[in-house]
Amino acid sequence: MHGDSFLNTMNPITEDSAAQALTQAPAPRRWEAIASELRNDIVEGLLAPGARLPNETELAQRFGVHRHTLRQAMQSLVREGFVQVRHGSGTYVRELVLDYALRRRTRLTQNLAEAGESASRELLGAEEALAGEWAAPLRVSARSRVLVLRTRARVRGRVVGVTESAFPLPRFAGLAEAFAQHGTVTAALAALGVPDYTRARSVIAARLPTQAEADALARPLTQPLLVVNYTNCDLQGVPVQAASTLFAADAVQLTVGPDDWDAA
Amino acid sequence: MHGDSFLNTMNPITEDSAAQALTQAPAPRRWEAIASELRNDIVEGLLAPGARLPNETELAQRFGVHRHTLRQAMQSLVREGFVQVRHGSGTYVRELVLDYALRRRTRLTQNLAEAGESASRELLGAEEALAGEWAAPLRVSARSRVLVLRTRARVRGRVVGVTESAFPLPRFAGLAEAFAQHGTVTAALAALGVPDYTRARSVIAARLPTQAEADALARPLTQPLLVVNYTNCDLQGVPVQAASTLFAADAVQLTVGPDDWDAA
Repeated sequence: MHGDSFLNTMNPITEDSAAQALTQAPAPRRWEAIASELRNDIVEGLLAPGARLPNETELAQRFGVHRHTLRQAMQSLVREGFVQVRHGSGTYVRELVLDYALRRRTRLTQNLAEAGESASRELLGAEEALAGEWAAPLRVSARSRVLVLRTRARVRGRVVGVTESAFPLPRFAGLAEAFAQHGTVTAALAALGVPDYTRARSVIAARLPTQAEADALARPLTQPLLVVNYTNCDLQGVPVQAASTLFAADAVQLTVGPDDWDAA
Repeated sequence: MHGDSFLNTMNPITEDSAAQALTQAPAPRRWEAIASELRNDIVEGLLAPGARLPNETELAQRFGVHRHTLRQAMQSLVREGFVQVRHGSGTYVRELVLDYALRRRTRLTQNLAEAGESASRELLGAEEALAGEWAAPLRVSARSRVLVLRTRARVRGRVVGVTESAFPLPRFAGLAEAFAQHGTVTAALAALGVPDYTRARSVIAARLPTQAEADALARPLTQPLLVVNYTNCDLQGVPVQAASTLFAADAVQLTVGPDDWDAA
């Protein structure tokens, strides 16, 4: 359900607000510019989670500043959660591991909120298509039409996952606009008359990404993906969304427990 | 909880019965010897799932036999489920994808049985150790002792996963012997006074294997793992087993659904 489809949609319809904040800051002070450059390296994956940063002397030399200025930049990155200091060892890019709970009511927005600071989502693209391989999970004819949405989630500016979803048409015509307006699938479905929905089944696999997937996730080809294929149903048990999420496995682990599934 | 620990324990205490059957067959006919060689290549991963076998002419040449003899060997492999013929395309190593359900009562034995033919398990090793990092999931002191079991599961002769489990001592002294006798954790726990247990929480991650893990799973270093860390509790809610299973992700996908968790 993925493959090259992300390759054509790398210009998000809605800009990521965290990225905007980084690029629109006016005339930063020197330490702010240094923090911004290191922050970008982390967000883009040039400095990988767990990587040790060069020591203060090396970094001060690289940026041509005093160690005091550099230290201000590092303190800012520590405060923002991008790096952590291990005393006697050095400064490291913080591992970003988001516990993503697979629940009866799995909500990306809620799971991102539980991951803390600065989670954001963007709509990468929306198009009508034949149901094709989405037909089986949606329990519709392969020749019926679906609305396919592609979205991307970031935490602390770093991409953690991309999702391709199919919604049956004509029932969910207007869903792309509703998503753009409300910002979440849950709110968009509610606007189209689905007040609640539950997760029918999740199938979890792991594999290496294609080049297009690696690009969409800003990860190397050697970083495995957690692939979650799932279906959501309305309270009458009718499928409203079939989807496939690719999580970068350096950033996300999935959790499952009885408390997440016991009937409310 | 893994790393190099599998490296020391590659001589299973109990031999895998499928492997025994392959090596102890007396004086096979020529087609049987060819089937056996190809079967071994598949089991050992030299012929990977999804790989196309050389065509009949090439294989007949390689083994120095008539195509008729070769065809007998292939028919045997088809029957056993190791390969499948796609007409007009060729003969392929069958993808082995085991749906492994994470349930309130997750039982490896039951999940393997649902995977069909010739599932087997072997005990790789057992040893006493300090609880260490098992202490938190088992809710015991890090300085208390645990029994660590290492087991390996195969389907159709191919390794699908390896598990390292810790059981608190002195409660489960004798569990290694009970496992060797009964062949499953469920039966071994029952023999030691735990008639039933339920899965508390599973945490699912994906990563590339270490060399030792790749060796234990008979997979290349480029084959991602699904890592499932979990705890099982007795009916009083006391942890009886903390474990980490490494599944070869070319062979196993995990499934989660409400029916698997709704209270009985």
